[in-house]
Amino acid sequence: MDRRDANDLESEVGLGCDDEKVEKMERNGSSSFSERSAGGLREPLLLSRSRMNNTSQIAMVGANVCPIESLDYDGHFDCYLDQMHYASESMLSSPRKYYGAFAAYAGSNMVLAIAAAALCAYIAPAAAGSGIPEVKAYLNGVDAYSMLAPRTLFVKIFGSIFGVAAGFVVGKEGPMVHTGSCIANLLGQGGSRKYHLTWKWLRYFKNDRDRRDLITCGAAAGVAAAFRAPVGGVLFALEEAASWWRSALLWRTFFTTAVVAVVLRSLIEVCRSGKCGLFGQGGLIMFDVNSAVPKYSTPDLLAIMLLGIIGGIFGSLYNYLVDKVLRTYSIINERGPGFKILLVMTISFLTSCCSYGLPWLARCTPCPIGLEEECPTIGRSGNYKNFQCPPGQYNDLASLLLNTNDDVIRNLFSSGNEEECHLSTLFIFFVAIYCLGIITYGIAIPSGLFIPVILAGASYGRLIGTLIVSISELDVGLFALLGAASFLGGTMRMTVSLCVILLELTNDLLMLPLVMLVLLISKTVADCFNNGVYDQIVKMKGLPYLEAHAEPYMRHLVARDVVSGPLISFSGVEKVGTILHALKITNHNGFPVIDEPPFSDAPELCGLVLRSHLLVLLKGKKFTKRRVLSGSEILSKFHASDFAKPGSGKGLKLEDLDVKEEEWELYVDLHPITNTSPYTVVETMSLAKAAVLFRELGLRHMCVVPKTPAKPPIVGILTRHDFMPEHILGLYPHINPHK
Amino acid sequence: MDRRDANDLESEVGLGCDDEKVEKMERNGSSSFSERSAGGLREPLLLSRSRMNNTSQIAMVGANVCPIESLDYDGHFDCYLDQMHYASESMLSSPRKYYGAFAAYAGSNMVLAIAAAALCAYIAPAAAGSGIPEVKAYLNGVDAYSMLAPRTLFVKIFGSIFGVAAGFVVGKEGPMVHTGSCIANLLGQGGSRKYHLTWKWLRYFKNDRDRRDLITCGAAAGVAAAFRAPVGGVLFALEEAASWWRSALLWRTFFTTAVVAVVLRSLIEVCRSGKCGLFGQGGLIMFDVNSAVPKYSTPDLLAIMLLGIIGGIFGSLYNYLVDKVLRTYSIINERGPGFKILLVMTISFLTSCCSYGLPWLARCTPCPIGLEEECPTIGRSGNYKNFQCPPGQYNDLASLLLNTNDDVIRNLFSSGNEEECHLSTLFIFFVAIYCLGIITYGIAIPSGLFIPVILAGASYGRLIGTLIVSISELDVGLFALLGAASFLGGTMRMTVSLCVILLELTNDLLMLPLVMLVLLISKTVADCFNNGVYDQIVKMKGLPYLEAHAEPYMRHLVARDVVSGPLISFSGVEKVGTILHALKITNHNGFPVIDEPPFSDAPELCGLVLRSHLLVLLKGKKFTKRRVLSGSEILSKFHASDFAKPGSGKGLKLEDLDVKEEEWELYVDLHPITNTSPYTVVETMSLAKAAVLFRELGLRHMCVVPKTPAKPPIVGILTRHDFMPEHILGLYPHINPHK
Repeated sequence: MDRRDANDLESEVGLGCDDEKVEKMERNGSSSFSERSAGGLREPLLLSRSRMNNTSQIAMVGANVCPIESLDYDGHFDCYLDQMHYASESMLSSPRKYYGAFAAYAGSNMVLAIAAAALCAYIAPAAAGSGIPEVKAYLNGVDAYSMLAPRTLFVKIFGSIFGVAAGFVVGKEGPMVHTGSCIANLLGQGGSRKYHLTWKWLRYFKNDRDRRDLITCGAAAGVAAAFRAPVGGVLFALEEAASWWRSALLWRTFFTTAVVAVVLRSLIEVCRSGKCGLFGQGGLIMFDVNSAVPKYSTPDLLAIMLLGIIGGIFGSLYNYLVDKVLRTYSIINERGPGFKILLVMTISFLTSCCSYGLPWLARCTPCPIGLEEECPTIGRSGNYKNFQCPPGQYNDLASLLLNTNDDVIRNLFSSGNEEECHLSTLFIFFVAIYCLGIITYGIAIPSGLFIPVILAGASYGRLIGTLIVSISELDVGLFALLGAASFLGGTMRMTVSLCVILLELTNDLLMLPLVMLVLLISKTVADCFNNGVYDQIVKMKGLPYLEAHAEPYMRHLVARDVVSGPLISFSGVEKVGTILHALKITNHNGFPVIDEPPFSDAPELCGLVLRSHLLVLLKGKKFTKRRVLSGSEILSKFHASDFAKPGSGKGLKLEDLDVKEEEWELYVDLHPITNTSPYTVVETMSLAKAAVLFRELGLRHMCVVPKTPAKPPIVGILTRHDFMPEHILGLYPHINPHK
Repeated sequence: MDRRDANDLESEVGLGCDDEKVEKMERNGSSSFSERSAGGLREPLLLSRSRMNNTSQIAMVGANVCPIESLDYDGHFDCYLDQMHYASESMLSSPRKYYGAFAAYAGSNMVLAIAAAALCAYIAPAAAGSGIPEVKAYLNGVDAYSMLAPRTLFVKIFGSIFGVAAGFVVGKEGPMVHTGSCIANLLGQGGSRKYHLTWKWLRYFKNDRDRRDLITCGAAAGVAAAFRAPVGGVLFALEEAASWWRSALLWRTFFTTAVVAVVLRSLIEVCRSGKCGLFGQGGLIMFDVNSAVPKYSTPDLLAIMLLGIIGGIFGSLYNYLVDKVLRTYSIINERGPGFKILLVMTISFLTSCCSYGLPWLARCTPCPIGLEEECPTIGRSGNYKNFQCPPGQYNDLASLLLNTNDDVIRNLFSSGNEEECHLSTLFIFFVAIYCLGIITYGIAIPSGLFIPVILAGASYGRLIGTLIVSISELDVGLFALLGAASFLGGTMRMTVSLCVILLELTNDLLMLPLVMLVLLISKTVADCFNNGVYDQIVKMKGLPYLEAHAEPYMRHLVARDVVSGPLISFSGVEKVGTILHALKITNHNGFPVIDEPPFSDAPELCGLVLRSHLLVLLKGKKFTKRRVLSGSEILSKFHASDFAKPGSGKGLKLEDLDVKEEEWELYVDLHPITNTSPYTVVETMSLAKAAVLFRELGLRHMCVVPKTPAKPPIVGILTRHDFMPEHILGLYPHINPHK
């Protein structure tokens, strides 16, 4: 069964099944287990699982994520920018050193790009890209170890710092979400026995659901730290990342982001002195736009609607092109790490050429009079870059291209300075950023999509605003904000969370109705063409993501129709050799257990047993010579925590067993580890309804039972892969997938 | 079966089962139906249901809710207040007319109170109270007709206007949520055939789920209009109201509130001239508090934490007392409408006494110098009430008690006027509002809880702020806001939505970390004592609300243990008389259909048939003399839309049938209307897991099948009532409900 490979799912604890394991244990070995629990010799781990996550560990996610993300990134970022600006500015100020300046600029970019690419290519390939699709897939139940592994975390942090510093048109927001999730995953691993780092509370995460909740909190913390938007973080986690919502989850993410907000607030307070580089800038509100109360007339509204429509079209075009580029790049990237680095170098060179070459197209503009800022800016990030202009003048395109992303966005959003950027400058900048953003995503560096989209959207909005400034009373800064909203809506397809994030970024509540309107329009328009960018990437990566709704063609099929592969089932008391053989020849993670005479009157489905539990059981070597029930003996040998879900990538493997050949003929009683209440569907159940059941309950295995009494009493097992459109349409190629 | 009575559920279309009906129709009469559909004679309604809600009708909810709510309320409110103030002011200005003034004041209050109470008592008792618990229960699947009936809507609107105008300590927010939901329900009814008001799009709501979505949108629109907080509305609907979240729902509520925001914005624009009374005041931000950037030190933070803790305790105490008072009142209210009105009159008199009598306890304060407002205020709502003070002075307690709620809140939230209210005034006001709020909720008028809680919380916060003004640099207005947040968190137990609503009310993003902190603390503290106020009311009203999680004791039971009552099942082709008898003697809404020889080899479960569908089938009178399959004939007689869920309270009833006695011996084929894919569980399935399945999929009926082949092939049917703790603990009184 090849399709159950790397991405396959390890365990059976479904969402919303708070008590699945507990009750499994209890119902099976009810006598022995309850006695032991009453005896109070050892505290049964799983029985105490119904306690809530107490908040301490979630607070830790917040507290942990926050300083790492905010400080490190901006700190390094700043250091590098200083260096870069020194190089370019000092060289550019003296004429005829064009080539030298370019070499220094492109060279330093290249070095950083290679560093980022090497990290990605050799240490953790999973760290490339935004990371949000991976987190989304994990929270949907796709449990691939490398996605959130510690080395991915390491590469994500440093790769992102190098990537942003290398001048690529990439953001740090997506990587921060991934970083947050990785840290949460690390915290939820249950510590390390090897290094004696085990805490009592860590055992709460020995199951899928609590671990998933923790990672949702981590993702929320990431957004909260990236945008300094605590409420936006909660909403992002719920709208885009999480596949299942619960009130408790809302409350936990809220707690996490509140901690992030408080920690951020204190760090900003500490950094007021200016020792932390660019970190403290902007305070909690990154782009504080204090526009006057906007008054708008009907023509304004029409213009804004048009802005939304075009934004939606550009957004979906962006998605389309990103998809195409990604597919092209994946061919190159598959050839090996060397090709990955080569690709990164090419894009880095192209980016350097653009940001260095394009400003030559713009004219020099005299500095405005009566300015508080210094103009032209020297030696640090600023809004009036000299760039080969005579003293007292500045190059507006250079100010956009050779600046920190934050400063550019702040510049574009700012109001009352219509004259600062020429129309042609905005146009060139828009085209450059739009194209660079598309070709940059997909190379082997951690790269966020938010910043490129916001940059392109803001320049597009400001462009439109500048165009119609004569007929509209609205501010160009407002247009830039709405343009960014329209692009975000057109690519990401989020609504409430984008709205709140933009609100928290700009602190302008009066724009809310307009932002909502633009988001609505652009999302609606873009939805006509394709899916959101993260959904596209999830699909392109081949992650088995389960959609919330059943596909229409599933109505024409029944559950039996998609059951595939030879079914391997065990008896209630099974030969060790049979089990070992089955574990060896298949990759299945769940096996049905069938009770046969003499243990029952007729063959009947006893339940489902998991590969991981089988391995633990075999490792324990409680075998018997004859086919007898030995449940209580077995239970006395094991502690409930032995069967808890191990940390990712840490569980027992088949190779870890050392069962001797003479033991193969012995028997082992599977009843104590069998889940006797698996969710089942009748074989004639409509596939659409089965899919809804599978998805809503977050199952990993679903048993299909025959409609009329039959032997064997199980038809097959459905897993996530059996519900994938590719699988179903492969089996039934003549079905119309849209009907 | 008495427990399946008024609140019982009518139909079987579960949440997330987009295709249930469709597929049922298709799978059963697959031949005939598909042919007909291909023939294109009539467009089968249900087959086209997989189309999305297009947004037009949702926009209509927004557009409809908004003007009704915002304009009517505030308009009437204003008219009355003018009148009231004329009466009291003019009389109070001439001394020795105390009794006359009080008589006029209390009398006009009394008249309005009686009007509100009479509406509630005689026309729509369901309109009393907040309405949010009812909406919450409806969205959980409790489908009681009167809750959202048109007459409830009528009474809710006018009763609320009268109630607020009568000077009760009640809010209009809860009633607005209910109003929004009622309007949505009315729109989702499918129009009225009687008055030829049927539109094509209305048929999209002929099923539970879309209707539920529409009502969620209505609730969101209510909050959005009440607080002028569109994003807060979305979050409220999702956090507090809805039981099932989906991305699509988020998007639809967002659309609705965006329309509300745009309509509100235009109405405010229209009302700028001042023709709409108090409506336009405050603009989109009701309480615009422009405090300086708050800087806080550690002692400030400690003070704020203490504020949160005490607020949480007061909040849970509020819930406790409201619960006690409600139970007492319900005894009085049950005696009849007369008693209801009497109770309202008592409370009205008490309220009048308080608001008229208490200001005598306060001293007169000289008007501050250099004020823009007139002082003392004459003839309209204002912040400096004269109330028997010498000219040039005002009574601060009267300014709080004899003012509109909005103005009082604005006053309490406002910063920089520490001197305006004395400490004793705030204390008296806090105690009065806290007590009046508690004794007012539960009387037979529409009464919201938000405003009393915000008022009490704001005065409490300002009191604390005034107390520690010497040691803290924070503003008293900020303390008032945080106090309101702590009370709201302590009573309602919402987090993100309260946070965003407060944000949208005050437009002060920099306070966000503090508000989050206070909400967290107060909710955590209050959760130690009892449940949120709406949960308490749902429970007290006996609505069968399904919790999202399974109760711990359910782990010790299996599905079979709670199956109760005699099971009534039908054959695939059944006698008309048997069906009629079964429909008459039970209130069941779902019956299992069992195929017996000769239609199958052995008795097997064919599926589930609904009462409403049986009634439609019997009404059609397609009976046969012998036991034969006549599915295709029957299908040709009916249109798919005949089986669509009718508007609430409109479906066929048993009395509408006119089956003659000689027809009782004829047969009818049930296969065409049988849902052949009902969700089933094995009888030995853990009850906890069965409950999770029932709740997550939003089912109304769940079939329990035997583990080993048996006759009959079904053990029983579980409905919502079987999962209620009262039912289970009634069956097993010795179970420990907390273990």
